[in-house]
Amino acid sequence: MSDEIFMSLAIKKALKGVKKGQAPFGACIIKNNKVISCEHSTVLKDTNIISHAEMNAIKKACKKLKSINLKDCIIYSTVEPCPMCFSAIHWAKISKIIYGASENDAKKAGFNELMIHDKKLKSLGRLKIKIVSNFMKKECLEPFKAWKKRKNKRIY
Amino acid sequence: MSDEIFMSLAIKKALKGVKKGQAPFGACIIKNNKVISCEHSTVLKDTNIISHAEMNAIKKACKKLKSINLKDCIIYSTVEPCPMCFSAIHWAKISKIIYGASENDAKKAGFNELMIHDKKLKSLGRLKIKIVSNFMKKECLEPFKAWKKRKNKRIY
Repeated sequence: MSDEIFMSLAIKKALKGVKKGQAPFGACIIKNNKVISCEHSTVLKDTNIISHAEMNAIKKACKKLKSINLKDCIIYSTVEPCPMCFSAIHWAKISKIIYGASENDAKKAGFNELMIHDKKLKSLGRLKIKIVSNFMKKECLEPFKAWKKRKNKRIY
Repeated sequence: MSDEIFMSLAIKKALKGVKKGQAPFGACIIKNNKVISCEHSTVLKDTNIISHAEMNAIKKACKKLKSINLKDCIIYSTVEPCPMCFSAIHWAKISKIIYGASENDAKKAGFNELMIHDKKLKSLGRLKIKIVSNFMKKECLEPFKAWKKRKNKRIY
């Protein structure tokens, strides 16, 4: 299984979320080439501001692996994890982040991003986590396009 | 009702958490002088690395107020919110953070803190949120003391 396949799953999940009226974000957690969790944002459905795609994926992965330690896991995120999600990834000891679109793209779409990039947070925290950015960026912007076409879309 | 009373509730909640085997953190969210939510960490109980006290309090407040926008709310946290919780507070549009012990105290106790202070994040994000630090710090360290006495305590 390749990075492309896992990111495609995250994109597909994000598009599914958009279809259901959710924000255009998706994330998958993979361990030993197996999908542990794959989630989209449910902030609006749950009326819970912390239900970002990555947070949902981490919560589900902890449950599935029966552990708060997700070492040796990789997270594929359609958009650069925000500082909340980045910090959750740190707490979970996930070893690698692969993301497509950037925080700037989410900001441009109207989301109230903190605008502190993952690489800045990594540097400030002196972390060893691996970060791959701009991976399949064009494809990762598709959920934004689908979302922009929707009526009554909500930003937060 | 005063800041002291609300912080005391957060401390009491943290101590209750410690009694149940949880990590020594508590947080209350207040709006118009009314307690909206008051929670302790449930990371260990839930096997969910994101179930910090502040995250639990935000989730509950969103549910109670039926809104993802917690403007005009104040969060009282026994310990400086970590970057995950700080960012969640930003997303929730909470207007003020009042905390007691610092991230350093949690680090000293053994928790894997990112060590990026709230004031640094505020500055990097150019935010307007008000931050009051070292509030009732001595009392806010009590849950750590109670926690240190416990056998089989788990850090993360």
